[in-house]
Amino acid sequence: MPAPAPAVPRRPVIGVIGAAEASPERVADARRLGHLIAERGWVVLTGGRPAGVMAAATAGAKEVAGGLTIGVLPDEGDGPVADGVDIAIRTGMGNARNAINVLSSDVVIACGVEGPGTASEVALALKSGRPVIFLSCSDAEIDYWQKFGPALVRGAADPERAVALAATLLAPRR
Amino acid sequence: MPAPAPAVPRRPVIGVIGAAEASPERVADARRLGHLIAERGWVVLTGGRPAGVMAAATAGAKEVAGGLTIGVLPDEGDGPVADGVDIAIRTGMGNARNAINVLSSDVVIACGVEGPGTASEVALALKSGRPVIFLSCSDAEIDYWQKFGPALVRGAADPERAVALAATLLAPRR
Amino acid sequence: MPAPAPAVPRRPVIGVIGAAEASPERVADARRLGHLIAERGWVVLTGGRPAGVMAAATAGAKEVAGGLTIGVLPDEGDGPVADGVDIAIRTGMGNARNAINVLSSDVVIACGVEGPGTASEVALALKSGRPVIFLSCSDAEIDYWQKFGPALVRGAADPERAVALAATLLAPRR
Amino acid sequence: MPAPAPAVPRRPVIGVIGAAEASPERVADARRLGHLIAERGWVVLTGGRPAGVMAAATAGAKEVAGGLTIGVLPDEGDGPVADGVDIAIRTGMGNARNAINVLSSDVVIACGVEGPGTASEVALALKSGRPVIFLSCSDAEIDYWQKFGPALVRGAADPERAVALAATLLAPRR
Repeated sequence: MPAPAPAVPRRPVIGVIGAAEASPERVADARRLGHLIAERGWVVLTGGRPAGVMAAATAGAKEVAGGLTIGVLPDEGDGPVADGVDIAIRTGMGNARNAINVLSSDVVIACGVEGPGTASEVALALKSGRPVIFLSCSDAEIDYWQKFGPALVRGAADPERAVALAATLLAPRR
Repeated sequence: MPAPAPAVPRRPVIGVIGAAEASPERVADARRLGHLIAERGWVVLTGGRPAGVMAAATAGAKEVAGGLTIGVLPDEGDGPVADGVDIAIRTGMGNARNAINVLSSDVVIACGVEGPGTASEVALALKSGRPVIFLSCSDAEIDYWQKFGPALVRGAADPERAVALAATLLAPRR
Repeated sequence: MPAPAPAVPRRPVIGVIGAAEASPERVADARRLGHLIAERGWVVLTGGRPAGVMAAATAGAKEVAGGLTIGVLPDEGDGPVADGVDIAIRTGMGNARNAINVLSSDVVIACGVEGPGTASEVALALKSGRPVIFLSCSDAEIDYWQKFGPALVRGAADPERAVALAATLLAPRR
Repeated sequence: MPAPAPAVPRRPVIGVIGAAEASPERVADARRLGHLIAERGWVVLTGGRPAGVMAAATAGAKEVAGGLTIGVLPDEGDGPVADGVDIAIRTGMGNARNAINVLSSDVVIACGVEGPGTASEVALALKSGRPVIFLSCSDAEIDYWQKFGPALVRGAADPERAVALAATLLAPRR
């Protein structure tokens, strides 16, 4: 093979997780998150379905020129995909795909922990050493998860602060 | 194919989950759980590794004649297995195997929720509609999980009560 | 934890793979295979569905007192299971479960390679270093697979010879 | 959520599969494939490791401005990645990730079938209904696979013809 070009670092990948059935506030947060992540030049990764936090984060990223979005889907190829997903990874693995979502993310931002799927992603992220930022979650909730990964759990009050925090978490990894 | 024999119902499978590094109290609970589950004629399913709650529940089941134990392991076949595991299911899937553990269980009993792996199994169980019994957990912890599956979450104060509760949860499923 | 009892070696697990839509000859072979495997005291592992080679190997094993059968299923818990499956492992992972079937088997016996699912299991077995015995397959077909794992591929003309061959392959592993 | 922008169709994804230890001819073919795929504006998906066909197809795609490359890796995040992989999907699932590679591809091009990993991907692709183009393979080899998916198997003599063929296969899917 010819000599490779000098390696260009991969763009950081931020996993945005949250409920498929989310409140208007959560959806607005997710859209803002997606927008801000894309503005940084980072990739937005979600569960890819056309619902709730997944769809909103994807749509937010596509508001930005050059925004790149990945959806890691539970189905084998026949399920619906959120508009704006650039790359649909079809796993055919149901909820086990949640492990892939967090392993493939440099930082995970939980836009609320409102359903068991999101809770499983938080847990799997901590198990695998991925930092998790809890956006607009109660102190009690953050405390609950803190014990599973003291160095990995952070809270943020709004999308701007969540993304700024993600930047500091990415720094040592690059 | 010849006419099949009249179908014999499969033995119920109880997933026992908990930390690899568990306190002596948790280990004693898990051993007792395994013993009681096997006495009922049910199968004990764990994560299969020779540590903590997994090893203890397996050992407890093997104290009973006819006790049958399954270990669903994260490795590809080269990892250690708890003594007493009758069938080692090798997944090669790391933590994604946690989804299999709970899908393969009729009822899940959490012998504490002390690490993120156990938390992921609780979450995945609730996501998949499997009942989860929290053994010797605080009300606050049970309340936290209740919101993710109100009809699926129960608490129990000791192994005897956990297994009696499992019996009532199995009844409508058979 | 109390001192463990002296470790009892786990019973060998033989994966029997083949088509869901199989000819009467293949079905008869699979049933005989299951019977012979169980007579040796080994465990029969299949894909667990109530069809073809899977169902027949399972039924054959249950003709023997003490025969133990595992079915590793693609679904999340709602799919049908072959009569006689003692333990249903629900993966929810579709065809990716084929990797688990072969990783969990000490030796794999292919009762024909008539569909792409079986071919994937043969390939994954060879990739993971599991021996594969091709039952009643043409020399040309065995030759094709031989190149992917020269030390792992064997042919057998009938179920009796396949199981005798499996015994020799198990010996060094125990 | 605000009204979504009119949906833009996703870019087709072409999976390029082949050996990690490949001959110079195979590597040259893979690089040319990657280049031609990217020129069409399609995405190149590989197994992501820095070796053989995977690395070459990725490098070829990055010779083209706007070339986009996905690597679906077997490890949990600690394994090496081919230079030029834009998005690293970390599955932590070992060979089971092969199912994801083909499910996520609209068309699969096999740059030879020289190892069992590639063979498993061919088989899984056919099982899941994905077309497979065999590049520079013998008629006997193509015939062997044809029986597993008669409508899905094609041969091509060089990268140019493989990519032209892929275009015809994509047409009805979009």
